Amino acid sequence: MDQAKINTDDFASLSLVMNSIRRAGATTRPEVSRITGLSRTLVSKHVAIGQALGLLEEGKLGLSTGGRAPRLLDFKKNIGVILVAELGATGMSVARSDLQGNIDEIVDVDFDIAEGPESVLARVEEVFDVIMAKEKVNLWAIGIGLPGPVEFATGIPMSPPIMPGWDQYPVRQRFMEKYKVPLWVDNDVNVMALGELSKNNDKRHTELIFIKMGSGIGAGIVIHGLLHRGAQGCAGDIGHIAISDPVKTICRCGNVGCLEAVAGGAALARDALAIAPTGKSKFLAERLQKNGSLSARDVVDGATHGDNWCVEAITNAGRQVGSILATLVNFFNPSLVVVGGGVSTAKDLLLASIRETVYRRSLPLATRDLEIRLADLDDRIGLQGAAEMVLAELFKPEIFRQWIEVGYPKTPIAL
Amino acid sequence: MDQAKINTDDFASLSLVMNSIRRAGATTRPEVSRITGLSRTLVSKHVAIGQALGLLEEGKLGLSTGGRAPRLLDFKKNIGVILVAELGATGMSVARSDLQGNIDEIVDVDFDIAEGPESVLARVEEVFDVIMAKEKVNLWAIGIGLPGPVEFATGIPMSPPIMPGWDQYPVRQRFMEKYKVPLWVDNDVNVMALGELSKNNDKRHTELIFIKMGSGIGAGIVIHGLLHRGAQGCAGDIGHIAISDPVKTICRCGNVGCLEAVAGGAALARDALAIAPTGKSKFLAERLQKNGSLSARDVVDGATHGDNWCVEAITNAGRQVGSILATLVNFFNPSLVVVGGGVSTAKDLLLASIRETVYRRSLPLATRDLEIRLADLDDRIGLQGAAEMVLAELFKPEIFRQWIEVGYPKTPIAL
Repeated sequence: MDQAKINTDDFASLSLVMNSIRRAGATTRPEVSRITGLSRTLVSKHVAIGQALGLLEEGKLGLSTGGRAPRLLDFKKNIGVILVAELGATGMSVARSDLQGNIDEIVDVDFDIAEGPESVLARVEEVFDVIMAKEKVNLWAIGIGLPGPVEFATGIPMSPPIMPGWDQYPVRQRFMEKYKVPLWVDNDVNVMALGELSKNNDKRHTELIFIKMGSGIGAGIVIHGLLHRGAQGCAGDIGHIAISDPVKTICRCGNVGCLEAVAGGAALARDALAIAPTGKSKFLAERLQKNGSLSARDVVDGATHGDNWCVEAITNAGRQVGSILATLVNFFNPSLVVVGGGVSTAKDLLLASIRETVYRRSLPLATRDLEIRLADLDDRIGLQGAAEMVLAELFKPEIFRQWIEVGYPKTPIAL
Repeated sequence: MDQAKINTDDFASLSLVMNSIRRAGATTRPEVSRITGLSRTLVSKHVAIGQALGLLEEGKLGLSTGGRAPRLLDFKKNIGVILVAELGATGMSVARSDLQGNIDEIVDVDFDIAEGPESVLARVEEVFDVIMAKEKVNLWAIGIGLPGPVEFATGIPMSPPIMPGWDQYPVRQRFMEKYKVPLWVDNDVNVMALGELSKNNDKRHTELIFIKMGSGIGAGIVIHGLLHRGAQGCAGDIGHIAISDPVKTICRCGNVGCLEAVAGGAALARDALAIAPTGKSKFLAERLQKNGSLSARDVVDGATHGDNWCVEAITNAGRQVGSILATLVNFFNPSLVVVGGGVSTAKDLLLASIRETVYRRSLPLATRDLEIRLADLDDRIGLQGAAEMVLAELFKPEIFRQWIEVGYPKTPIAL
């Protein structure tokens, strides 16, 4: 790319134009002008810059709207590759994405996040290297989702409860030193919310809440189509909201009656272990004898098999999450709530109890068009979301500035 | 203004430039370019349009940053006038604002919202006419805050609980027919949230929640510096969130245990009336005998005078609001919470119980820099917010388009 030819200081509208073409895949200059509200002159100028950067090329003729048919602009989604990884407590998925967020080369690996960052991230790098060795790829950026709180601006995990050894580990720095490309890290539920958003290409849902019922419980919040991270970046941390809990269950955070201490996967496993020897659940007693331990997965399986105690446990978890969700729906008025995470494999049983509680306790107007559904676990929305996170950052004005002024940002100052 | 000279189709960046100069009051082209990220050429072009529209004029020389000192651009805040009105249950305030949101000519009028829209809005118009008659003003727009749900897009009240006769009354249409200018209507708590936002000129707080504890309880939510109205426009309707209420108080909405049925001003008045004859509050018994009725105001006065029952009632209301707020703080992670409305005149007593509950039940990270304070009732943030609401709409790209294509939008199609 001949960067000497590129002359602009208007990176905000350049970013607007490039994002609009990237999302559309292929479009025309008049259409970009209509969508962005920018003048045709400015759009044409930015398109020329996009061509010089190698991001765009002229395609075939588009539809005429009366006059001469405009040329289609093709977004060259394959000039760069993004590597993405979604880490959970006991498994990771790694994949590759083009610059439009299309995922392929998915690899699933079992591991334990408690092995610590050195060991776990070495595994991620191994898979990255395998994917990169397959064919010569031009690596542009990396995106990673972690199962705990992350300071997004620095890419550093902050006191993650289920990730011993990870607190303040410099994840971004480690990868940037090895791969020399920009890298973004966020917590898994934010990434999943972005993944759900990207699925909604019709743009009907710009206000959504993604609830992950895994070992713990967390939420990702999308507002006006953008992730809402909050003033300290801890928005969506709903696992420790106090609920009405007569048993006064003590949470790992030290408080009593936290949502996840009653309705999270770890809580289900804990209660299952306590109940199995009492004879109240034949299913769990058998599982415990067979496997020597019990997990939330066993409670979900028990519910699916119609075990009474397990059905009631899942229903109760759904009601508890539903009661918090009713509050959030009144407050925030989203149009879509998606429930994912391991506990959500209990499917309709869980969904029904969440829905019932929300619809009973939210304002009629707030639930009139509210859709509550389960995440589709086949959708790989974690990987999808990690790619979306990277693309949203990569096409920001500041990156274009660095790109044009100092070449493609291998280790951008702004990060 | 000679509109023949104006030639642009780039209304998005025109709006960006005008808003940046309007907020600053006076600034230079290089500074506008820096803040908006737009090129100097584009900024200069839009400044010329602003001058042609009569919105800007060249001022004195600004500070040099090395080269030739740039000219200051003055925003001509007095070329148009905005009329604003804030309607409550029992009183209204009316005022005038310039195009920068500076309020003057404030008039306060007692009335009863239950008189119905014809009578009440005739009173508003009377005061508007008095203000307009004082000197020849160029009326540009009107902004109104109402004490109930409003469909913002149409300016129509939707089933407002304390406003008999107002349901679906065409407030916007009535004023637009008389005054022939654009008009925006929203509920009072959204307007107050905008007023608080405009006070924070240092821009530290872009994520804030305004809680109004009046007769009912509602919240206004500001995200990234913009009002969040939600998918159906009912975001912030927190008065009917279910709380833990052993007494199972029935709310006017038909549900039991709603927040405002326990902690709102109407609930305080109801409980005060029930308690006064029992001898548990000497203060309330005397007030009831003297005035023949009791209001939330009497409970606040009682608490200020140290009456035990009143102190406990206010403290309990604060705790209930605090417990919901703790949930919202965990979910939304704002940097500022402001508590206003009639019950907030109980000041420190109320604030202390809200703060105590929020700090006890929210995540440490979410409350690390969280500021919770009372609204300053002398600030007239309702009027201020109504002006901000109008200015935010008036300087949008679509209005500039109409302005330039068909002259200043007296009755814009887009409304």
